[in-house]
Amino acid sequence: MVDMPKSIQINEEGPREGFQFERGPIETRRKIELIDALSATGLRQIQVCSFVPPKNVPGMSDADDVVRGFAPAPGVRYSALWLNEKGLQRALAAGKLDVRGSIALTASATFLSRNQNRTFEENIEAQRRLIEMYRQNSVPVERGSVMAAFGCNFEGDIPVRRVIDLAQSVLDLAAEHGLEIKVFNLADTMAWATPGSIKRVVGAMRERFPQLRLALHLHDTRGMGVANAYAGLEMGVDIFDASVAGLGGCPFAAHKSAAGNVCTEDLVFMCDELGIETGIDIDRLIAAARLAEDIVGHPLPGSVMRGGSLRALRARIRANA
Amino acid sequence: MVDMPKSIQINEEGPREGFQFERGPIETRRKIELIDALSATGLRQIQVCSFVPPKNVPGMSDADDVVRGFAPAPGVRYSALWLNEKGLQRALAAGKLDVRGSIALTASATFLSRNQNRTFEENIEAQRRLIEMYRQNSVPVERGSVMAAFGCNFEGDIPVRRVIDLAQSVLDLAAEHGLEIKVFNLADTMAWATPGSIKRVVGAMRERFPQLRLALHLHDTRGMGVANAYAGLEMGVDIFDASVAGLGGCPFAAHKSAAGNVCTEDLVFMCDELGIETGIDIDRLIAAARLAEDIVGHPLPGSVMRGGSLRALRARIRANA
Repeated sequence: MVDMPKSIQINEEGPREGFQFERGPIETRRKIELIDALSATGLRQIQVCSFVPPKNVPGMSDADDVVRGFAPAPGVRYSALWLNEKGLQRALAAGKLDVRGSIALTASATFLSRNQNRTFEENIEAQRRLIEMYRQNSVPVERGSVMAAFGCNFEGDIPVRRVIDLAQSVLDLAAEHGLEIKVFNLADTMAWATPGSIKRVVGAMRERFPQLRLALHLHDTRGMGVANAYAGLEMGVDIFDASVAGLGGCPFAAHKSAAGNVCTEDLVFMCDELGIETGIDIDRLIAAARLAEDIVGHPLPGSVMRGGSLRALRARIRANA
Repeated sequence: MVDMPKSIQINEEGPREGFQFERGPIETRRKIELIDALSATGLRQIQVCSFVPPKNVPGMSDADDVVRGFAPAPGVRYSALWLNEKGLQRALAAGKLDVRGSIALTASATFLSRNQNRTFEENIEAQRRLIEMYRQNSVPVERGSVMAAFGCNFEGDIPVRRVIDLAQSVLDLAAEHGLEIKVFNLADTMAWATPGSIKRVVGAMRERFPQLRLALHLHDTRGMGVANAYAGLEMGVDIFDASVAGLGGCPFAAHKSAAGNVCTEDLVFMCDELGIETGIDIDRLIAAARLAEDIVGHPLPGSVMRGGSLRALRARIRANA
């Protein structure tokens, strides 16, 4: 057990997670409206889109227009996702994005084979090609990642030892190219994590790689998102991916198996109450969450956007006293 | 920090919380169907109804019929709620219920005044009358409670000191009547608790009253239910109220401010994964949660009922291996 962090960084992934996932077409101007609302909350990193083939992800076919349209706020880093050279070139061409590479390995061979048709070894080769692509484009690489770090729907539980070995492989790949990984992300890609496994995996990573700053990417499919984030905070983790209103997931039967990242405003609410600084104005963030719900046109999973912040409630109580 | 408990007891409150809260009339036979489904899950305590005036709570007007109708399972205690002598007499007359009294004080004077039109002192007198009523009816009293122990929508944060003082008052009231309180419940009536305040209040209670077994009643209005339960487990709490499927709350705008107790199957799922025994079959409980959703006719807030248990998923993975 280490001390809770005094402050954390939240990477907002709602626009990318959500608009990628939603079925109905959403107007480009409304996507931009949400990004602009998020820019006014105090968030310092917002992932705005992914540059992927429109035939695979129709919701991202307007990614270039979305990036052209939003109004960048000072001090906010806007990022995007890509999977290949073409996507990276679109991100670089956009001009407004903070383009950084990462080295990501996947802890489940079966998942890797089914989703990317690669073996572990082929994936390492693919990462080498990505690193070379980043080098040629002068894109910095300081982030490593292990996907499916807590479990896999095809393989089941993932041994902690495998996560550690893969993290070492990421660091070795970086070192091969003279790069230094500073932030390491553990992704609960298929929502297997619970507070116990968060503590085991984060604890083992901390012990083996004390120099790394750790980040968590948590999905909320089994309702563990906030509790997992709390367990991460208790282990000193100070970077979290999150999704406003829980965008990317939906509590409806129609989207049965889906669930987004841990909900940003629920996480920020908890941090506010724990005295952990996020730099984010919870009530502005709640307003952005309600906007997100309005944009997608159906209820989203967030709780605090409905229950309200205690900061606002305390202010009302004081005003009435 | 104390050790996590090896096992916990869950008091299922879904039938009472849910059918009290739902707007639409629900057929008596369907309420009974849910109670019978819950009886088959391994739950050892189920609160089936409240005996309150039908004009106040129309959803409970069939409480006597509900109690008459369900099939009691061996080893399961069925409880009910009442607010006065008339309600208690209905509970006693039902014959099938485990009737136990409790002594409950409320940490917010304003809430007490608004909801029950009583001062602190009047509430203590009211508790004395209840205790006398329990004595006359040979109803055991071993449970104490502080309501609004973590915060109040009218008064704001509640000082830990006040919770401790009220708990002492409960013990004093019990001692006056030769009773011994064994279980003490801290109720987050208005969903102000976060993992930090859970640890502060539970820690202070443990230190001052090491002889008491502590219980938590958690509401999920701000999405903290599971994280608060985890913080409680980390403090050694081993009794939790919970509500199947999150009955009593609803993720819909139409029921905007409402939220039920922490969701039973989400809590059981977490305990399963933490190696904490609940005695409950998670997959039967998920089936009961889906039945609850079918009965109320709209989505309920539970997550694991949609995401599925990892126990079931591991079994499928093994079968396919």
